[in-house]
Amino acid sequence: MDGRPERMKLEVTALKKYSLGIDFGTLSARALLVEVDSGREVATSVSDYRHAVIDEALPATGAKLPPDWALQDPQDYLDSMAACVRDVMRQSGVDAADVVGIGIDFTACTMLPIDASGAPLCFDAAWKANPHAYVKLWKHHAAQPEANRINETAERTGQDFLKRYGGKISSEWFFAKALQILDEAPEVYKAADRLMEAGDWVVLQLTGRETRNACTAGYKAMWEKASGFPPNEYFRALDPGFEHVVDEKMSRDIAPIGAKAGELTQEMAALLGLKAGTAVAVANVDAHVAVPAATVTREGIMVMIMGTSTCHMVLGREPKIVEGMCGYVEDGILPGFFGFEAGQSCVGDHFAWFTENCVPASYEREAQAAGISVHDLLSKKAAALKPGQSGLLALDWWNGNRSVLVDADLTGLMLGFSLNTRPEEMYRALIEATAYGTRVIIDAFQNNGVAVDEIVACGGLPEKNELLMQIYADVTNREFKVAESAQTCALGSAMWGAVAAGAANGGYDDINEAAAKMARVKDRTFRPNAEAHAVYDRLFREYLLLHDHFGRGANDVMKRLKAIREEQS
Amino acid sequence: MDGRPERMKLEVTALKKYSLGIDFGTLSARALLVEVDSGREVATSVSDYRHAVIDEALPATGAKLPPDWALQDPQDYLDSMAACVRDVMRQSGVDAADVVGIGIDFTACTMLPIDASGAPLCFDAAWKANPHAYVKLWKHHAAQPEANRINETAERTGQDFLKRYGGKISSEWFFAKALQILDEAPEVYKAADRLMEAGDWVVLQLTGRETRNACTAGYKAMWEKASGFPPNEYFRALDPGFEHVVDEKMSRDIAPIGAKAGELTQEMAALLGLKAGTAVAVANVDAHVAVPAATVTREGIMVMIMGTSTCHMVLGREPKIVEGMCGYVEDGILPGFFGFEAGQSCVGDHFAWFTENCVPASYEREAQAAGISVHDLLSKKAAALKPGQSGLLALDWWNGNRSVLVDADLTGLMLGFSLNTRPEEMYRALIEATAYGTRVIIDAFQNNGVAVDEIVACGGLPEKNELLMQIYADVTNREFKVAESAQTCALGSAMWGAVAAGAANGGYDDINEAAAKMARVKDRTFRPNAEAHAVYDRLFREYLLLHDHFGRGANDVMKRLKAIREEQS
Repeated sequence: MDGRPERMKLEVTALKKYSLGIDFGTLSARALLVEVDSGREVATSVSDYRHAVIDEALPATGAKLPPDWALQDPQDYLDSMAACVRDVMRQSGVDAADVVGIGIDFTACTMLPIDASGAPLCFDAAWKANPHAYVKLWKHHAAQPEANRINETAERTGQDFLKRYGGKISSEWFFAKALQILDEAPEVYKAADRLMEAGDWVVLQLTGRETRNACTAGYKAMWEKASGFPPNEYFRALDPGFEHVVDEKMSRDIAPIGAKAGELTQEMAALLGLKAGTAVAVANVDAHVAVPAATVTREGIMVMIMGTSTCHMVLGREPKIVEGMCGYVEDGILPGFFGFEAGQSCVGDHFAWFTENCVPASYEREAQAAGISVHDLLSKKAAALKPGQSGLLALDWWNGNRSVLVDADLTGLMLGFSLNTRPEEMYRALIEATAYGTRVIIDAFQNNGVAVDEIVACGGLPEKNELLMQIYADVTNREFKVAESAQTCALGSAMWGAVAAGAANGGYDDINEAAAKMARVKDRTFRPNAEAHAVYDRLFREYLLLHDHFGRGANDVMKRLKAIREEQS
Repeated sequence: MDGRPERMKLEVTALKKYSLGIDFGTLSARALLVEVDSGREVATSVSDYRHAVIDEALPATGAKLPPDWALQDPQDYLDSMAACVRDVMRQSGVDAADVVGIGIDFTACTMLPIDASGAPLCFDAAWKANPHAYVKLWKHHAAQPEANRINETAERTGQDFLKRYGGKISSEWFFAKALQILDEAPEVYKAADRLMEAGDWVVLQLTGRETRNACTAGYKAMWEKASGFPPNEYFRALDPGFEHVVDEKMSRDIAPIGAKAGELTQEMAALLGLKAGTAVAVANVDAHVAVPAATVTREGIMVMIMGTSTCHMVLGREPKIVEGMCGYVEDGILPGFFGFEAGQSCVGDHFAWFTENCVPASYEREAQAAGISVHDLLSKKAAALKPGQSGLLALDWWNGNRSVLVDADLTGLMLGFSLNTRPEEMYRALIEATAYGTRVIIDAFQNNGVAVDEIVACGGLPEKNELLMQIYADVTNREFKVAESAQTCALGSAMWGAVAAGAANGGYDDINEAAAKMARVKDRTFRPNAEAHAVYDRLFREYLLLHDHFGRGANDVMKRLKAIREEQS
């Protein structure tokens, strides 16, 4: 590392303390073991969920699921966690006693009904045939009718909380999903002792103690530090049986970000190959833990986690109302700040869809002949195009629109096709559309008093798609820095794990210290090209016209088509 | 055939007379030899043009062509004609002396500049490097600025002819193309002794006599039987150098449909393996000759030729103004009728584009494993879908819109994409979009007093795509009959060849007689399904909303994107 003799290095290593981050994604869990003092990533391991996303049929019965459903099996979380944690410990050779803290982050709102013992209802033979007994994954979009009711009722009864969330609650959020259970499976709702975020449920498994983290409570369950949850009368207005949802099925005891949830139980320590008593942080949201891991601990710097979807986070000192944002929560990302969050519900998923459905066999053969991947071939061809050269323009709504329109019923659009249109042009148009979607979000923040002076990207896309990063820089006319870690979520969780441990136990006492020591950005950044930006500026105006026409009610054709689609399915 | 002894059959055969139809399509020429008394198709042969469509670079120089150009090399017409005519004569064993007449049909407006000897300018070494010296194919769309000028000037100076063409002249037509030559290559314009429809040019080659057919003059060059061409002042208003375009570069001597143009020259007879002196009909348009070949010789029955593009023709007894039709011409299809024509500039081309660019390798493998073609696999999957089940809706404008919007600068659109969208859904949405486009045209005719009581389809698509035909029936709520001949254009040309020969020479004296003897429809027809139609009726309303929004100026995004595309190319 630096020329010191081998033996000294070993001694230094022996003094090291480690922190473990576990990032629960949409398809897999990832464990990352990190040196507390340097942030050096010692070992990482990924374990795919056995059932991945359950969106076609329930494995237990084979019964077909309706459109827009997306479930998971919570046993997969435990199994994948055990597999990847054991693997990093094995790889690293680190002594479990030197792991000072554990942090976990999770997709959100990903929630499930559990019984009084903390076991998921779907583990019970009596309930395993009922799809409502399973985890409803963040991208379960079938609670849109409930979300509509939540929004209409909130407007009608003048609820304050709406304004914190850009005026609209998403079908992805906690109460929409909870209300769908009550609507469609009141027996499941009744049988559930509690309804819980999956992240909090995993912490419950790890520590034996129930905690509810402020981040998901704030961002996904309309809770705020000052006033708590919406009043019971509001829930009653949604459904008389829903009046006491908070007291009967949840908890008003909300744990702040960075707090220690408890200590690892004997049983879980054995399962994971760790030491009982290790500090465990309260759960957090995958996106949010990436903020300090991307070096950001102050206002004005947007962190974008870019993967299958993109999450945009900025810290600010004051509450601000921004249309269609996913919410602002006091202390929701870092203590002492209002954490603003927006999102694009489909980014990398567009490219995966495209690669699976629209890349012709001739391209596969061309890639094979050139000894490169289909994705690299597409990128190479797309990179050779100039902005606007394809004549194509798309709306990046293959999975609805989260910010700023908050509408899961919007669908994708592409126009400008000619008989000369080639796959790489469509591919590039999809990338560009997601960049325009990001610009809409940045502009919404800026125009409403939430400064976005710098941007740091992280997640899978910045690691593997330089063309995309350059297009984002050109479309937004901003420099994009990239977090050094390829796994900022897991790193962020490990940082929070170190904070849960505290300095006295070899961790840190606050997240600023942790970020200063453990987080970095790469030297390589993406700077806008003025000429490209000038063209993208014109194209963005066209995007906005379409965005507003189809997204703000001038022509609700997308919703009507979706309604016909559902009738015919 | 019917049990008569072999020797009698040979004797009967020896008494037979034959007619030869030659159909010049976009990519090939097809010859069809037909028994005059029965319409029996004795032999057919296709010969691809060596240079196909010249739309990327000029073969003579390698110079890149601008976007929207589409040229052809007239030598290809002669070479392919010789190849396919010789082949049908060889195949059939028919004595050239028993071929009583020849008819040809051509794409239109497909035009070229020629010298005083009748040779194309591009055959001359002095001109062969100039793209304007070549044939401008019907789908050459680069004369849109000239078409715009033609329309604006006609409106400003109150020209009558506009109303006959639905209010707008297309960039595909004769004077737009001629004016583009004058604009961009005045030296070519000046050097040209004449500008001529390619069909008339081939007849000139066959007979040594110049004729100008009433059909293309009427449908593509603003000529009408009663008043002739627009006045010279109008052409002067377009450009002072264009004032005498008709007298200097064309002819006012227009030959009626069904007339004999002349007789086959010795030289061409030798080239084609036919007999000198054989009657040759005046040239005709490919689509129009199909009308009698589809059995239609009276008003109220729409003939649709469905191939790469679709042409819709109806006969009527009175002139009627219909928005965006390609024109009505007195005696333009059949003598004694006003011939109404509309068109969709891209139909089968959509599916070819899709198959080439959007069918993934996995489908190719699946088709291979099932031992069927990719197209059959797609059709099978698409046929399993219900109307509206995909949630997709498209505008069938991959090659602009001919009727009713007459706008080559419109481009294709598809919306309703989700992450579950599959290739067969996109494929079916493209088929449906072309069916909606047809319904717009039928409705425009009906709503403006041109009755469409029945429909007979012909061309390549009805032969090979039953799913498409059923969707057309369901969308339009009409029965679709299908012409028996798989090559109605060539059959129609052969019928007109028989009429050019006349009854005295073994042909017919008029087209009604020829149609009664030589043309038929198939037993299998496509009848609408009421349930499917009810859904398509709702989807059609959505199509219309998008059609009018993007096609009638509410949002000209397609044109602006095309302008940016051209800047960036």
